[in-house]
Amino acid sequence: MPDAPLLLTPGPLSTPTAVREAMGVDYGSRDGRFVALVGRVRRQLVELVADPADYACVLMQGSGTFSVEAAIGTLVPRDGHVLVLINGAYGRRMEEICRVLGRRHRSLVCAEHRPVCLHSLERVLTRHRDITHVLAVHCETTTGLLNPIEAIAEIVARQGRQLIIDAMSAFGALPLNAATTPFEAVVASSNKCLEGAPGVGFVVGRRDALEAARGNAHSLSLDLSDQLARFDRDGQWRFTPPTHVMAALDAALTVHRDEGGVEGRGARYRANCARLVEGMRARGFRTLLPDPLQAPIIVTFHQPEDPSFSFDVFYDALYARGFAIYPGKLTEVETFRVGCIGQVYEADVARFLEAVDAAMAALS
Amino acid sequence: MPDAPLLLTPGPLSTPTAVREAMGVDYGSRDGRFVALVGRVRRQLVELVADPADYACVLMQGSGTFSVEAAIGTLVPRDGHVLVLINGAYGRRMEEICRVLGRRHRSLVCAEHRPVCLHSLERVLTRHRDITHVLAVHCETTTGLLNPIEAIAEIVARQGRQLIIDAMSAFGALPLNAATTPFEAVVASSNKCLEGAPGVGFVVGRRDALEAARGNAHSLSLDLSDQLARFDRDGQWRFTPPTHVMAALDAALTVHRDEGGVEGRGARYRANCARLVEGMRARGFRTLLPDPLQAPIIVTFHQPEDPSFSFDVFYDALYARGFAIYPGKLTEVETFRVGCIGQVYEADVARFLEAVDAAMAALS
Repeated sequence: MPDAPLLLTPGPLSTPTAVREAMGVDYGSRDGRFVALVGRVRRQLVELVADPADYACVLMQGSGTFSVEAAIGTLVPRDGHVLVLINGAYGRRMEEICRVLGRRHRSLVCAEHRPVCLHSLERVLTRHRDITHVLAVHCETTTGLLNPIEAIAEIVARQGRQLIIDAMSAFGALPLNAATTPFEAVVASSNKCLEGAPGVGFVVGRRDALEAARGNAHSLSLDLSDQLARFDRDGQWRFTPPTHVMAALDAALTVHRDEGGVEGRGARYRANCARLVEGMRARGFRTLLPDPLQAPIIVTFHQPEDPSFSFDVFYDALYARGFAIYPGKLTEVETFRVGCIGQVYEADVARFLEAVDAAMAALS
Repeated sequence: MPDAPLLLTPGPLSTPTAVREAMGVDYGSRDGRFVALVGRVRRQLVELVADPADYACVLMQGSGTFSVEAAIGTLVPRDGHVLVLINGAYGRRMEEICRVLGRRHRSLVCAEHRPVCLHSLERVLTRHRDITHVLAVHCETTTGLLNPIEAIAEIVARQGRQLIIDAMSAFGALPLNAATTPFEAVVASSNKCLEGAPGVGFVVGRRDALEAARGNAHSLSLDLSDQLARFDRDGQWRFTPPTHVMAALDAALTVHRDEGGVEGRGARYRANCARLVEGMRARGFRTLLPDPLQAPIIVTFHQPEDPSFSFDVFYDALYARGFAIYPGKLTEVETFRVGCIGQVYEADVARFLEAVDAAMAALS
């Protein structure tokens, strides 16, 4: 059994060596060098998607979901009204957050293999004038589906509402910019397309909205407005930051820039995805999604209909050959998922396809 | 300037080499090896303070404060009534959490250089029969003060109330066990006396209380009951765990056990503390606390009254010699703090005292 399989998952991922090496240093959280590192990371994260004159980055300890909850809890007023766009588990999770937080909400639910319906969105916003915020998922990791985020943002902006985007599995690889895709906040985390280590998420949000939200949050830990005020005051975290994970994110952003930023990283992932889909189709596997809906992040495949196929056996056979894939997350059909992100290159995909051949031969 | 100064702080700390090396592997969060690691860590954390038959450990992403908020939000019923024992910043922080979460609360405030007053605690509980929960801090990092946690627990138990202990800076070095110090939950984090990396906290709580709290939490992310149910079902986290930080904590627990557990680690810290206090007193520095109140975690010293003394210059002079100390946190008097925890040994304290001599000589 290999010591560390190549992770073909939605994250945590196989990270660059420089990222793991960066975790070898113990920083003091009040140390000037660490404070400078944090400032540098925050600035770079804003610059990837928005104008730093209008937007600020608030880092938040925890998984990406902690940051999504922080964005909803901080930015949606207590008397706000939320529309959640749902075509997968991450849309449903935002609905669940609204329910737990007691924020009034309604949902627009679409099939998991279909993008969010723009006509329905337009209709719901026209009909319900008191909706203040729309929550959307950029790439639905449930299936790997790319939602039409630019068109969603255009409708929401034209209707005068605020948009919060869960871009967890897209940030850093798929183009997104507030100049063309207006948003109040975008949420992501360190350990997806940025290829850092898990343990910190972040929100890039309109500074005026974050500042106006003082005292609105349901939680002390997850209060973005309070944390932004502290970053503004002295660059420090209110509560102990994950120093090693932050050093990893700093290194990850350097690797990302050296690869050509969003464009370069996206190109590598697209090449991985194309090679994977082509190779799996040549082996008789069918993708859940048609190509135009497929984001180059993670691909959902139908399990073979052969009754002798067992996902667990298939998984173990691939794992023994050095690859960790991911189970499906759909209730209706039997699927599995293969990620295209992290330190994965076309040559790795080619090796993976050979492992699939060997695994299938062992299965039959 | 040294690459990584020795951290004489309340954490994040200088960690064992094995802990940092453990972060060099990328684990998949659904990987069987990682799931086994998580189970092992949870079991060991319970065994340090309680009987695994009655208590369970719930790990929680984020800083220790996230876990404190999770414990209060999950375990205190919406109609509960909290008494917060305050003699420092961490007691005040729990009061702030109760305020933000809308949990009814009152506070028993003592001077920061005095332990929680047991007579007052007894009186308040007798007078206010509707108080359901008492929140106490084991070691107040604000000053380094050791609260009489056994006596507090005895009173709270005798009065039939529940006790939640913030043992952040004590867990793993100071004795604490539910058998002799009854508690509903104790909260701590990876990066204090366990000498792991920051990024995950945990609550060791009574299993029946955690299970009975389903649906009570104010937050999805910080819901301990929901996370415990998931750990019980399949050993998995609901939301992406900080895999590298967890691998570090697993390694840290091995180092902790090899050092002789709570007893061995506590002995080293006590030796560090005694050497530090003795050496600093010999150089004319005064401790804030009398010895019986001093926990062997972090020591608060008065700043010299010499008007030429500048904390910033002193800090920089020590930093240049390879030591990072910590500012004071008191409003009334000018102080600074020096930690005794992490990968610090008596020989390091001796070197630190020489650095103090050099720094003071440079200052004058």
